[in-house]
Amino acid sequence: MKIELMKRIKVKEALASHETGTDILVKGWVRTKRGNKNISFIALNDGSTINNIQIVTDTQTFDENLIKDITTGACIAVSGKLVESQGQGQKVEIIASDIELYGKCDAETYPLQKKGHSMEFLRENAHLRFRTNTFGAVFRIRHSMAYAIHKYFNDKGFYYLHTPIITASDCEGAGEMFRVTAFDLKNVPVIPETGKVDFKSDFYGKETHLTVSGQLEGELGALALGEIYTFGPTFRAENSNTPRHLSEFWMIEPEMAFYNITDNMDLAEDFVKYLIRYAIENCSEDLEFLNSMIDKGLIERLNFVLNNSFIRATYTEAVEILIAAGRKWEYPVAWGRDLQAEHERYLVEEHFKQPVILTNYPKDIKAFYMKQNDDRKTVKAMDVLFPGIGEIIGGSQREENIDRLLARIKEMKLPEKDLWWYIDTRRFGSAPHSGFGLGFERLMLFVTGMSNIRDVIPFPRTPKNAEF
Amino acid sequence: MKIELMKRIKVKEALASHETGTDILVKGWVRTKRGNKNISFIALNDGSTINNIQIVTDTQTFDENLIKDITTGACIAVSGKLVESQGQGQKVEIIASDIELYGKCDAETYPLQKKGHSMEFLRENAHLRFRTNTFGAVFRIRHSMAYAIHKYFNDKGFYYLHTPIITASDCEGAGEMFRVTAFDLKNVPVIPETGKVDFKSDFYGKETHLTVSGQLEGELGALALGEIYTFGPTFRAENSNTPRHLSEFWMIEPEMAFYNITDNMDLAEDFVKYLIRYAIENCSEDLEFLNSMIDKGLIERLNFVLNNSFIRATYTEAVEILIAAGRKWEYPVAWGRDLQAEHERYLVEEHFKQPVILTNYPKDIKAFYMKQNDDRKTVKAMDVLFPGIGEIIGGSQREENIDRLLARIKEMKLPEKDLWWYIDTRRFGSAPHSGFGLGFERLMLFVTGMSNIRDVIPFPRTPKNAEF
Repeated sequence: MKIELMKRIKVKEALASHETGTDILVKGWVRTKRGNKNISFIALNDGSTINNIQIVTDTQTFDENLIKDITTGACIAVSGKLVESQGQGQKVEIIASDIELYGKCDAETYPLQKKGHSMEFLRENAHLRFRTNTFGAVFRIRHSMAYAIHKYFNDKGFYYLHTPIITASDCEGAGEMFRVTAFDLKNVPVIPETGKVDFKSDFYGKETHLTVSGQLEGELGALALGEIYTFGPTFRAENSNTPRHLSEFWMIEPEMAFYNITDNMDLAEDFVKYLIRYAIENCSEDLEFLNSMIDKGLIERLNFVLNNSFIRATYTEAVEILIAAGRKWEYPVAWGRDLQAEHERYLVEEHFKQPVILTNYPKDIKAFYMKQNDDRKTVKAMDVLFPGIGEIIGGSQREENIDRLLARIKEMKLPEKDLWWYIDTRRFGSAPHSGFGLGFERLMLFVTGMSNIRDVIPFPRTPKNAEF
Repeated sequence: MKIELMKRIKVKEALASHETGTDILVKGWVRTKRGNKNISFIALNDGSTINNIQIVTDTQTFDENLIKDITTGACIAVSGKLVESQGQGQKVEIIASDIELYGKCDAETYPLQKKGHSMEFLRENAHLRFRTNTFGAVFRIRHSMAYAIHKYFNDKGFYYLHTPIITASDCEGAGEMFRVTAFDLKNVPVIPETGKVDFKSDFYGKETHLTVSGQLEGELGALALGEIYTFGPTFRAENSNTPRHLSEFWMIEPEMAFYNITDNMDLAEDFVKYLIRYAIENCSEDLEFLNSMIDKGLIERLNFVLNNSFIRATYTEAVEILIAAGRKWEYPVAWGRDLQAEHERYLVEEHFKQPVILTNYPKDIKAFYMKQNDDRKTVKAMDVLFPGIGEIIGGSQREENIDRLLARIKEMKLPEKDLWWYIDTRRFGSAPHSGFGLGFERLMLFVTGMSNIRDVIPFPRTPKNAEF
């Protein structure tokens, strides 16, 4: 049948179809073409699945130039009969009856003509890397994980809250912030008397930045709607050129009224396991590909995390374990010091050999909003540590007592005036509550087995790199 | 039973429960308290539903000070027996046996103590407005609409793509952009020879802005994965102080390979109707509240849009209709000029009395990437116009022909060099494709009946306002 008269079906559906003998229409990009003068076998992919459908073409019945133009990367529409495949590797294939060429792909200049490019090269061609098996798999999984996050919270009665991206508040202390301005940078107005920037004349009438976290605003929602979560971009203007850092990344931050730190840990563990189970159940073909090509231990590791309870230990216990290990650490271990990646990895990968949730950290290494324990030295913080990743989740019970919160704000010399709205929630109908943050790309590293965080976000933003 | 020993259930579940006679535990915020010396009726809300549960309290059995502290806005936990209600207005209520006060709420200073605040006042108290009936309803619906968007696309096999927020590209031409920088604004480095800002020494090594649209990057995904959508924040540094404009707002932008403009219109209509149907089916209590308190025509209007096909007309036909109307327009009507809000509203609200999709706009008033018609004067653009809202969706078939695209880029004097990655997709395996953008807050205005866009986003960002 003629292409114009038919309704396209996706390759994924075609491959799963049992209706051999019927005419179908598929559209997609050529992955490979092989064969001889009489017959061509075209592997066609349309992004709906990692698998290609084989198009069998009797080259004699088509225009010679058309066949010549069907090269790797070209885009075509093919109608023909779906038949049981004669060859190995696929159940069905299509005997082409009509082919339309949508877009050629010059073999000389197409960057992905050859296989086996380095990750670095593909990053420089991030506009095309979606077309490779690896990145097709990664970004289909990324979609599934994002969807699973929304589904998990929706099914539990949480509300998705869009917290602001541009913020005049700088209290999280989570890191260096990017400035946002409508000023012409060549002519930033300065107040003559003080020599200070005249932020009153900027777009928002004050100094503004890109958010480092939606938590504080998220708490406002939780203390009225009960259970909320954010899922949005966050930013760090830190000059960290590592495989673990992005300057723009996505965070999920649930905040829950009436949850104590134990409820918080239970939720975090249940949540991460739900996501891993969702990946295993919904992304099996992509995971199998990544397991075979990127990380041979991937699926085993996912199942291991799924089938074991996370170890729960206190920071103090962790410090004792690290000291008892008798190792020479790059960063010294002592009660009161923050744990470094080397310590976290030792605990997870060598000592416990399991994901670990550490709690009750010294208050001096944690944020002002964390609930103080009665010992007045530690806070109800929790970090979830994962093999190969380190910290994947950080959270805490929040300080709901206004006096203790204000005292902590003073101690830490934070601008109480700017936090009036946050403090108000403790003044008016305060409630015990908790929350945590999950770095989406950290989760993606774990679920895909990819080793560089730049390869699990479509267009990574890192120092000196804002391409595309 | 003692509160510490029980598991809390949400007010929504309690109100729906048929298990009268059992002991339950609820937690939430006091909306009102009335009664006499012997008995108090407390209306408790926990955000899970717009409805309150009534707590009947024999005041003699509780500490006098506790009862005194249970004021509007206070947060309490209540255990007691669930019983059929004696009074009107609710099926079940709770006979309190134990009450714990989590957070007092001083009646003198609590901003929401009285009812009937202006929207303006509530905006200034956006940290607390979630606690009102109206904003509880709005933000529960906002969650449902966001979830429905993800569900719609997931079920159709679209992939969610996170396009970058920080961008070095400035080609959309959709409006003024915010600058993003890590420079100290007091000491922006300038190249002495040229007097220009030394962007090479900024964080990204070039000039960067906040995105106005994820479309161009979205197309890169669609031309490999088939069907994608974005759902993320976008920005305009425009000094528009109107009830229809935000400087930070959320957009949904689907992009689909192999869709022509008709497929695109079909998808847009199906999508919006799905969202409205989802709201009607899943948010009925909140919609009924808004229908009674905010906009008496709301539910009727939602059903009207759901049950009627959108009118499809060309821009040229629209211009003829507007001229034939014989009105005095503030902005003159003539072929080649862009339509203004007054024209769009006339078409939708007075002429067609239905949502309208206008197509085939003059190329000179539309973006460079829109596919040119064979008349070479118009492009395959489409705008979906809604009653009361105006343009809610804008989209087009994209120009997939590289020669025509390059010619348009030159004509419009756009920096071809900066668009190399976008052009590459037309060079290598180009495909017919289409897409559109839906402003999430515009949708929210339509679905909630709210009249100011600042009231459908948790923390609005507008000129001179970046509070919270």
